[in-house]
Amino acid sequence: MSEFDAATAVEPAGDGTYRATIADGWDIGGIPNGGYLLTVVGRAVLDAAGRPDPIAVNARFLLPTLPGPVTVRTELVRAGKYHATVRASLHQDDRETMAVVATVGDLSSSPDDSPLAPPPPELGNPGDGVGRAEGGSYVPPPIVDKVELRMDRNTTGFASGAPSGAGVMRAWMRFADGREPDSLAMLTFVDALPPAVFETAVTPAWTPTVELSVHCLRRPGAGWVACATEVGAIVGDYLTEDGRVWDAAGRLVAVSRQLAMMPRG
Amino acid sequence: MSEFDAATAVEPAGDGTYRATIADGWDIGGIPNGGYLLTVVGRAVLDAAGRPDPIAVNARFLLPTLPGPVTVRTELVRAGKYHATVRASLHQDDRETMAVVATVGDLSSSPDDSPLAPPPPELGNPGDGVGRAEGGSYVPPPIVDKVELRMDRNTTGFASGAPSGAGVMRAWMRFADGREPDSLAMLTFVDALPPAVFETAVTPAWTPTVELSVHCLRRPGAGWVACATEVGAIVGDYLTEDGRVWDAAGRLVAVSRQLAMMPRG
Repeated sequence: MSEFDAATAVEPAGDGTYRATIADGWDIGGIPNGGYLLTVVGRAVLDAAGRPDPIAVNARFLLPTLPGPVTVRTELVRAGKYHATVRASLHQDDRETMAVVATVGDLSSSPDDSPLAPPPPELGNPGDGVGRAEGGSYVPPPIVDKVELRMDRNTTGFASGAPSGAGVMRAWMRFADGREPDSLAMLTFVDALPPAVFETAVTPAWTPTVELSVHCLRRPGAGWVACATEVGAIVGDYLTEDGRVWDAAGRLVAVSRQLAMMPRG
Repeated sequence: MSEFDAATAVEPAGDGTYRATIADGWDIGGIPNGGYLLTVVGRAVLDAAGRPDPIAVNARFLLPTLPGPVTVRTELVRAGKYHATVRASLHQDDRETMAVVATVGDLSSSPDDSPLAPPPPELGNPGDGVGRAEGGSYVPPPIVDKVELRMDRNTTGFASGAPSGAGVMRAWMRFADGREPDSLAMLTFVDALPPAVFETAVTPAWTPTVELSVHCLRRPGAGWVACATEVGAIVGDYLTEDGRVWDAAGRLVAVSRQLAMMPRG
């Protein structure tokens, strides 16, 4: 079993409840990555609904979730022909730490072409990218040992105190152990890059996500996926970040949006 | 009381439940507009949480909701210093027709400037716009009598069978009775334009929204608001539409994203 599948495994415990264990190593400074946590919830949601693919997933991060035992509660709200809707929540030590709503379905018959979709960024080959924004003072978080990044060198200035100012990040990514991507993995990948706001003029620091939305439009093919994120807006203490993921064949597979608070050092 | 306030009024009925009446006239072909329905739920959510402004709102449209009596159920998930999180649902005839999760808070102290935000579209004066995409075979829905539109003439080709192909719509809008905009009204405004996909190559038809996300970043000032929507992607049967709203002073006040199914004639 891949590290990803092991770290996101859930065990049915009856009445729509699932037990899971938040694993070590999928964190940023000791705090497990939000996309990783959402994947654990997403796996329980797919099981509860009996559908193979997440389609539209909204997550709220209410309190930090730490490595260790958790419970996922699910409620199947409606099961229709194309979609099922599930309310879910993550609980640790009797506290709800995440609130999730998900629309799930079946993307197995997606067509190969898209009538209208943004093209993938020009990232060259994965070997052209920078593994871990190396060379600067920035210390990559432990999750990069699980999700291997090959970052566009034009978007890693933040690591050495010289952000481009564009508020954009781009990278190839894949699971370090070779596990192929699927629709569920998108919930992890859309949150695996450092915050794009680091490439504005701010000093990298904790950037708390309030809400994360992911839309999976198609199952990815095998190989690296290309991710691009950008700051949509900074207004007061809030920022929005938009993300897109393309598979190795250049097909758009997922889009995301986060509402976060500005980094606080 | 304005038509908008009357049509979105909610009455507390105890235990986080609210009674409301879906009004006539806020519909598209007899089906009440999704943004309008979300505003009814949003008003109940703000009351339940005791916070003045919606910040991040996600809605799922499970079944059609028709004019007439409804019940909104709310559950206060967490009340923090800056934000409160509420799960809510809309019920009609004992069926849940909408599932909503909302993060609410207080935008009263938003700064006037934004470090980074897209500028408003160049729409000229509201008087330069087209009232109702007139002159073609397209019949504007009844909701345009409530939300007055002044559409950019470059984005109304769909009404006469000649879409631009760009998948973009732009308009000034305001409440027809002069009621000034506020953060709650954004839940209506982000869904008040015809689907941007009408400005691709498709024939205008019912475009069912699966999920609608709205982020309110700042309270709007008085006057017209400028709205711009665009198709983000079309993949298989799915499309995404991104929206932005600026107030009369040109400040970005809200962003939105919808996942919808392609129009079905």
